[in-house]
Amino acid sequence: MIIVLKPDATQEDIDHIVERLKELGLTPHISKGKERTIIGAIGDESVLQNQPLDILPGVEKVMPILKPYKLVSREFQKENTVIEIDGVRIGGREIQVIAGPCSVETREGLLEVARRVRRAGVKLLRGGAFKPRTSPYSFQGLGEEGLKYLAEAKAETGLLIVTELMDPRDTELVYRYTDIIQIGARNMQNFRLLTEVGKLDKPVLLKRGLSATIKEWLMSAEYIASQGNRRIILCERGIRTFETATRNTLDLSAIPVLKEETHLPVIVDPSHAAGIWNYVPPLSRAAIACGADGLLIEVHHEPEKALCDGSQSLKPDRFEELMRELRKVAEAVGRSL
Amino acid sequence: MIIVLKPDATQEDIDHIVERLKELGLTPHISKGKERTIIGAIGDESVLQNQPLDILPGVEKVMPILKPYKLVSREFQKENTVIEIDGVRIGGREIQVIAGPCSVETREGLLEVARRVRRAGVKLLRGGAFKPRTSPYSFQGLGEEGLKYLAEAKAETGLLIVTELMDPRDTELVYRYTDIIQIGARNMQNFRLLTEVGKLDKPVLLKRGLSATIKEWLMSAEYIASQGNRRIILCERGIRTFETATRNTLDLSAIPVLKEETHLPVIVDPSHAAGIWNYVPPLSRAAIACGADGLLIEVHHEPEKALCDGSQSLKPDRFEELMRELRKVAEAVGRSL
Amino acid sequence: MIIVLKPDATQEDIDHIVERLKELGLTPHISKGKERTIIGAIGDESVLQNQPLDILPGVEKVMPILKPYKLVSREFQKENTVIEIDGVRIGGREIQVIAGPCSVETREGLLEVARRVRRAGVKLLRGGAFKPRTSPYSFQGLGEEGLKYLAEAKAETGLLIVTELMDPRDTELVYRYTDIIQIGARNMQNFRLLTEVGKLDKPVLLKRGLSATIKEWLMSAEYIASQGNRRIILCERGIRTFETATRNTLDLSAIPVLKEETHLPVIVDPSHAAGIWNYVPPLSRAAIACGADGLLIEVHHEPEKALCDGSQSLKPDRFEELMRELRKVAEAVGRSL
Amino acid sequence: MIIVLKPDATQEDIDHIVERLKELGLTPHISKGKERTIIGAIGDESVLQNQPLDILPGVEKVMPILKPYKLVSREFQKENTVIEIDGVRIGGREIQVIAGPCSVETREGLLEVARRVRRAGVKLLRGGAFKPRTSPYSFQGLGEEGLKYLAEAKAETGLLIVTELMDPRDTELVYRYTDIIQIGARNMQNFRLLTEVGKLDKPVLLKRGLSATIKEWLMSAEYIASQGNRRIILCERGIRTFETATRNTLDLSAIPVLKEETHLPVIVDPSHAAGIWNYVPPLSRAAIACGADGLLIEVHHEPEKALCDGSQSLKPDRFEELMRELRKVAEAVGRSL
Repeated sequence: MIIVLKPDATQEDIDHIVERLKELGLTPHISKGKERTIIGAIGDESVLQNQPLDILPGVEKVMPILKPYKLVSREFQKENTVIEIDGVRIGGREIQVIAGPCSVETREGLLEVARRVRRAGVKLLRGGAFKPRTSPYSFQGLGEEGLKYLAEAKAETGLLIVTELMDPRDTELVYRYTDIIQIGARNMQNFRLLTEVGKLDKPVLLKRGLSATIKEWLMSAEYIASQGNRRIILCERGIRTFETATRNTLDLSAIPVLKEETHLPVIVDPSHAAGIWNYVPPLSRAAIACGADGLLIEVHHEPEKALCDGSQSLKPDRFEELMRELRKVAEAVGRSL
Repeated sequence: MIIVLKPDATQEDIDHIVERLKELGLTPHISKGKERTIIGAIGDESVLQNQPLDILPGVEKVMPILKPYKLVSREFQKENTVIEIDGVRIGGREIQVIAGPCSVETREGLLEVARRVRRAGVKLLRGGAFKPRTSPYSFQGLGEEGLKYLAEAKAETGLLIVTELMDPRDTELVYRYTDIIQIGARNMQNFRLLTEVGKLDKPVLLKRGLSATIKEWLMSAEYIASQGNRRIILCERGIRTFETATRNTLDLSAIPVLKEETHLPVIVDPSHAAGIWNYVPPLSRAAIACGADGLLIEVHHEPEKALCDGSQSLKPDRFEELMRELRKVAEAVGRSL
Repeated sequence: MIIVLKPDATQEDIDHIVERLKELGLTPHISKGKERTIIGAIGDESVLQNQPLDILPGVEKVMPILKPYKLVSREFQKENTVIEIDGVRIGGREIQVIAGPCSVETREGLLEVARRVRRAGVKLLRGGAFKPRTSPYSFQGLGEEGLKYLAEAKAETGLLIVTELMDPRDTELVYRYTDIIQIGARNMQNFRLLTEVGKLDKPVLLKRGLSATIKEWLMSAEYIASQGNRRIILCERGIRTFETATRNTLDLSAIPVLKEETHLPVIVDPSHAAGIWNYVPPLSRAAIACGADGLLIEVHHEPEKALCDGSQSLKPDRFEELMRELRKVAEAVGRSL
Repeated sequence: MIIVLKPDATQEDIDHIVERLKELGLTPHISKGKERTIIGAIGDESVLQNQPLDILPGVEKVMPILKPYKLVSREFQKENTVIEIDGVRIGGREIQVIAGPCSVETREGLLEVARRVRRAGVKLLRGGAFKPRTSPYSFQGLGEEGLKYLAEAKAETGLLIVTELMDPRDTELVYRYTDIIQIGARNMQNFRLLTEVGKLDKPVLLKRGLSATIKEWLMSAEYIASQGNRRIILCERGIRTFETATRNTLDLSAIPVLKEETHLPVIVDPSHAAGIWNYVPPLSRAAIACGADGLLIEVHHEPEKALCDGSQSLKPDRFEELMRELRKVAEAVGRSL
């Protein structure tokens, strides 16, 4: 790391900093410039995560050189991670669309949607049994009953299941029913939950927090990876900004940034970002053109009566049409779908 | 609620909306203006939380009239909630300062800080035993050992304890040791955790999420209140903005807004907002002048060696001086400290 | 507009509001619900732009029904505006790419870039003669000399010219040399400048302000249109958010939102949004897939030596390749390029 | 500056960077660490403002060491700048309140407000003759007529005048009537306007842009200072965030940050930040407690009928009371008012 000193730092200040660096196992190199003295500290920068060097007398700022994440970084692993589940590959040339209702509401409704998305070419079914809702008075999900309906849909259609885990106490239960464990945006920094899923042998779909920087998001992925589970799918779902025309602002720039920084697959959830169903098709096409490895799209057989996020759900017919549109865009950028 | 129709909405659209409203138990009133037709729907607006009326054909926008929170609203309870614990009152005329280290690190260090803040006039000691850290490689807290040190500090100094609960599985453990249960910013929308503490009979200090609107924050308080626990203290701790000169942007406007919207006490954490210790004193004075009922301030006996957030911790001497400054400001606004 | 009253509003309050509405030429309709009284005010809502009804005693909130912009709204004009200049059409089926250096620096450099982008199929050349720079010590543009080089490039290549106007005092000068007048992000709410270009008979490219909502952006377009000039091209160029991995966050959701709200053409500037050249190709492809009518891309023959924004400029070879990629995406979404 | 190389940077890359640095007049120092090679470049860092070193092959990031502003920095001038106009001192021990209507509307109204704020102890009168309004259909100010009313109010009450300049073409006109020239938030990066007022011999009140970082704000002050005018007053007026309960989020942390970074006086405008009059008193008290050198407060004799920003204006009686409250807070922090 680089420590920039204040213009009026004294020799005593410098000696104190040098001593402190040595205590921390770092090797200091002093360089006196015309306007500033700089101390380079060679060694393990992770000590910075615990030790506040910026408050030592005479220090103006401390600039880390290395990135705080390791296992998930492109530097650690050059080639892309491709996650394979029962022959379905995420992160390869083929783009995967995960589709289904926001929440599992009825057995019949779920089966209908499952059949329709399956027919449209989808291989992964989404549906929430445990729902994080802003209001305590909103529908909170069917719990295990919802998981059972998902299992039934899988048995009938062969679709793989993606469902959310909200509480470490439900880990075993959700694990039993799902193929991919979803961690929602509001739990991106629920570090205890990350630690739990890091110990499992099923892939984790990690949504970006509403106001998480890409760096923080990768640190959350690192939490999971550091426990042993490296099968992580990152899902961009919009960030919070001042703009109110859409529910959140979909940050598609995150795709090329992540492709540089990490080897993990990156998918996009345009439904939650937009909050309005008719913005979902253009944003889906854009995500594919931008390099996403997949999409997470809400489809409901009767959005008017959905108990959760009906406004942003596509009807099965519109979804089928979207799949055709996406296939053309995928081909235009050298991918398949 | 008010439903504004599109200029080209047909009679069929109107009939369909009217029918849907009646199904939901609402009474529709149609009003045809020169430029827009408007439908007022009288009845229980909370159906909106589950039902997406904005996607019905012909609808331009749906505007709720009522607030989504009830129990925590000023409308529900006009007089201020004052929380009393062993004779210490939060939310009354007297301002309460909660002080202590970010994390409990050593028995001796904690005791030293406890004695010093006690001497400066403080009645509540803070200290984290479970720490939510951005990096899996950072110090994660001492766990139960830390809780025991807090209990020892309480036994010696008489200070009440405020400590964080991160995981529903630790509820019983933390409950045993603490007087006020802190819910951290990253868990403000951990709805399962909110539900747990809503069932307890100890006050909850609920920090605002990094990117939570005041409305969402009050909805999280409503989660707790809806379970029966109405002793909730709201803690503003800075929101995420584009400005990088401070760690977060302390939103002091939230104080007068909350004083209007809710009857709950409001305190301010300038340490986490600023991220830099020398901005803490001016922001603490400002919070009191703005009407805060209390402060949450980090104090460390040796910030240079703190394992967590040392950069933003005050040394005991500076803290004592700050307490003297705060007393003057409190008096200037008709409060005591 | 709808005026929602406080639960404790008195009859006197209501009478006063009714009287005030009548004074403003509006017709009030009172509707007493179980929890709130609501007053609907029928008539010209634009009085709200000057008159603060929300501070009348007893008022909880005032909700406008209509949109504040007229001439630029889709309601005012259903069909898309297509701007034609010397046979080049913006806003039609064909996508237009505007390319060139951030600032005009040397005659030779500009001519080289002009020839290269021309050869790649471009019809419009960008280049700044007046540059708004954050620092007074940065290169501020060549002024009229730069405009002359642009004219020379036009004469040689036939490319139409797009260049920025920063100061109302330069209006005549810039008008003389350019085909499209660019208003930069920092001047989106320079209302005097908007008024000036609103009086001209050349198209205006209006960039979105760094922190402008889509509504404010359309209000700025309305400023121009209200003076008579309705040939306005909207250019999304990234908004300011907390994320620092890119210079700004490109808001592609703005494209479908604008396509609904306005009849004006919408283009995208991925170079300024990203700030880093290698993110420009994926974001360009995404913009086209999302429905943009065009792109504004920085191309420099020698980015390493650019005096302005070299980091985000593509070299001519990479740009040519990008044009080939974009053509495929354009076709995939039913457009041409 | 410090240039951090990518882990796979080649010797050829290093040679090229070294050569480029030498061309720019900088002296490179190479330091090879275990994980990264770093090049320190000693010399004038301002070359960075024009030259993009981050795109040279092998470069991971470029970190500037020095601050981009000079004349306005605390490093350049240690002691506070105190601006004196006809015996009124801004930036000294005494706090100055600038009060008056948002816009000058009528002669009588202005005179009434002027008399009332004068009586409450104020020495500076604000009032806009040229108003930047979001809508072209809103009241745009009285222009020179408004300036004349301000002159009359000054003649009668002795109050100094603060009014806004929006357009470089009005510089001479506004200069003639005002004592302090206000540059509004929307013009903070209108660099031509900054250059104009930088040449004048009257103080400039520079409002922070809605989404300007503190660094950018100081760069705008540097624009003014670089032209010779160093009598600059910085005015915090709220920044744009996701929170909608207030018009903007008042960033009081900016006060201690600025007090460290610059020698210029800092005042606060709580009226525009809050947008709602009853939040103005607590925020005013907070600003003083936080170290502000003054306030800019909107006062209107009849807010209900104000043509601009009536919702946020205090009535003269409430303002008088506020002045009494502020005096107590000022004394509590060792200042006078």
